[in-house]
Amino acid sequence: MTYKYLLDIALILLSTKIFGLIAKKYRMPQVVGALLAGIILGPALLNVLQETEFLTMVAELGVIVIMFTAGLETDIRELKNAGKTGLLVALIGVLVPLFMGAGLMFLFTTGDFAFDGNVILRNFFVGVVLTATSVSITVEALKEMGKLNTKVGNTILAAAIIDDLLGLIALTVITSFAGANIEIYQVILRIVLFFIVSLVISFLFYRGLKWYINYVNDRDLHRFPIIAIVLCLLMSYIAEEFFGIADIIGAFVAGVVISNTSKAKYIESKIAPLSYLFLSPIFFASIGFKMDIPEMSLFTLFFTMILVLVAIVSKLIGCGLGAKVCGYKFKESLQVGIDMVCRGEVALIVINKGYSLGVINATLFGPVIIMVIVTTLITPILLKLVFARSLTLETSSTLVEKLEEFEEVDKLEDKILVI
Amino acid sequence: MTYKYLLDIALILLSTKIFGLIAKKYRMPQVVGALLAGIILGPALLNVLQETEFLTMVAELGVIVIMFTAGLETDIRELKNAGKTGLLVALIGVLVPLFMGAGLMFLFTTGDFAFDGNVILRNFFVGVVLTATSVSITVEALKEMGKLNTKVGNTILAAAIIDDLLGLIALTVITSFAGANIEIYQVILRIVLFFIVSLVISFLFYRGLKWYINYVNDRDLHRFPIIAIVLCLLMSYIAEEFFGIADIIGAFVAGVVISNTSKAKYIESKIAPLSYLFLSPIFFASIGFKMDIPEMSLFTLFFTMILVLVAIVSKLIGCGLGAKVCGYKFKESLQVGIDMVCRGEVALIVINKGYSLGVINATLFGPVIIMVIVTTLITPILLKLVFARSLTLETSSTLVEKLEEFEEVDKLEDKILVI
Repeated sequence: MTYKYLLDIALILLSTKIFGLIAKKYRMPQVVGALLAGIILGPALLNVLQETEFLTMVAELGVIVIMFTAGLETDIRELKNAGKTGLLVALIGVLVPLFMGAGLMFLFTTGDFAFDGNVILRNFFVGVVLTATSVSITVEALKEMGKLNTKVGNTILAAAIIDDLLGLIALTVITSFAGANIEIYQVILRIVLFFIVSLVISFLFYRGLKWYINYVNDRDLHRFPIIAIVLCLLMSYIAEEFFGIADIIGAFVAGVVISNTSKAKYIESKIAPLSYLFLSPIFFASIGFKMDIPEMSLFTLFFTMILVLVAIVSKLIGCGLGAKVCGYKFKESLQVGIDMVCRGEVALIVINKGYSLGVINATLFGPVIIMVIVTTLITPILLKLVFARSLTLETSSTLVEKLEEFEEVDKLEDKILVI
Repeated sequence: MTYKYLLDIALILLSTKIFGLIAKKYRMPQVVGALLAGIILGPALLNVLQETEFLTMVAELGVIVIMFTAGLETDIRELKNAGKTGLLVALIGVLVPLFMGAGLMFLFTTGDFAFDGNVILRNFFVGVVLTATSVSITVEALKEMGKLNTKVGNTILAAAIIDDLLGLIALTVITSFAGANIEIYQVILRIVLFFIVSLVISFLFYRGLKWYINYVNDRDLHRFPIIAIVLCLLMSYIAEEFFGIADIIGAFVAGVVISNTSKAKYIESKIAPLSYLFLSPIFFASIGFKMDIPEMSLFTLFFTMILVLVAIVSKLIGCGLGAKVCGYKFKESLQVGIDMVCRGEVALIVINKGYSLGVINATLFGPVIIMVIVTTLITPILLKLVFARSLTLETSSTLVEKLEEFEEVDKLEDKILVI
């Protein structure tokens, strides 16, 4: 056994912390700092740290716990209210990038981008890569700003769940065209079954836990956060292994179930240190490690820039349009659009899948990784810019509001995952 | 990537919790329950869970954090006072098992225990296997009972540090006879250098942290537990990689350094959930997984029983004698002796080393694993028995003492790692 991983973890915790504090100093979400730490110490620059199997597994646990915490903070009643808006934001927000991505690829069919296989399939595959929003970073950024539990925050969380499912449907449809192994009806059946099973498990678990909390006279016991993590991990595993649905969806559902019990706050306070002391810094750093760019031609670099632009603009238009249609103000629609810009691990999983299926070639790998990194980095910055302005407007009136603001930030200090 | 490890973690957390609560019900340390969970779900019985590389690495982090927490709770001034006693307890407690183990092996040189190589070397190697005390489980058990911060508790912690070093010196001496690669003077130099380097790092870090705590106006910030973990991991890594000293020694030293700052309590409260929600259940379960006994002859089984007996009696006599010589009462000497009975990961590492060096043969592997498991299981039970009686005597007098007792248990509830 090698002990290098102890050094790896120490360096990740130290660097994400230092860069997080620097980011904070410049009024950026600390998540940006953590990602930069990963890029700087990772293969892209200093190459002090590389992704290992161990770090990948811990990072996966990190994103699971982040999504579980997001679920824990979601009010299911508000989610219900945001239902229709969420659906429309997600639907238009998936269709626009899908077609804009495919459209962009129709312009790149020669030179570095010549492709022997089915070009139409390849084009739509890149479209699918652009559909999958990764809200975990947005959730982090919103949480830091105390803006998660707002109308906009709930809409993007609702949209993100539906978006992820729509993205997975799109992925399965496109891969079924490639592999001819998976039938569309099977996919739909799986998703429907997952939600039925989730509902049954959630209901039984919720009733059982409520009885047990009552049985121990509502005391705060270490067993509650343990039970919560067990549910979180089991739901993640079931989603992934039995239904082929992203594990983070299972984790989010588990979080929502727990959020309805009287122990939600206690559980969250105990899971937070597990997250910010170990799991989430490794997750954010490992995204930075992905920035291992192969040598690229100037033409590919040019393509990358356009891809990044399409990725940002298509989500902004798609999700913003969805929000505007549902009666949101222009500024709110803009906020929703920006929230959904961020692509993450799902996009990387999709591109991996496409490459291993032979539907896309290696040339596209670099541009897509950069697209993920740039949207990941730019989302919290844009978010901060748009929200910061409204923050100033809201809190410049009375002292009482200032105090509330201060208290909220103080409460948040205990919740945020990176610092 | 397979998601089986999510299920593994969920099962470990759930089973260690359930068996921990059952153990608690029968007034046994919950650590016993966690170990039993590992044995029952592991390869020995149900074979639902097996040790994986990931779990091994997390378990190592677990034992590091447990030893770090032990260091965090140690008062360095009391450690100084217990210095001479600790040294004598450790020294006699290493010499008696070394010679009793070797003596036992001189009786087993035929049949299953015939050996082609250097028999004397083999015999003393088994002696070395018996020298290494593993106090992490004892520390856990003492902590649960609120008995860690007592004269006896501090003596065994002091003895354990010296014991581990003496064990490592014995191991290196014996392996240098086998491999002819490592010189004795190099080993001594390494250990001396490690302690000089530790002192320098500790001093600089302590002064730096003290300045920084003052700089941020003594506020409780998430960065403090992160800094503490970074120091813990770095010291563990440096000890293991640069000095060939067990990583847990480095972790313990880091804990002692942090214990002298004003943030010790805050840091401990944040690291505790990381430990009991994730790391330490996996560590204890993984010890249970080791119970993968190869098929053994009746003769080997008979040998195993005697080996277990020698392991227990030799530590009891050795360490107990050391304590008695230093003026401890009979009962206290017995307590010290029992505290040091437990063998753990170090014994397993030593036997592994001996096997890979060809100094011992495979037949001895099973008996040593069983010896580790039995001493691990029996130590907390014996400890509980001996301490429980004295507990009743101490607290049956006045109401004030009863109250203090209650408060101490209450404070502990937040500290103990498993439940």
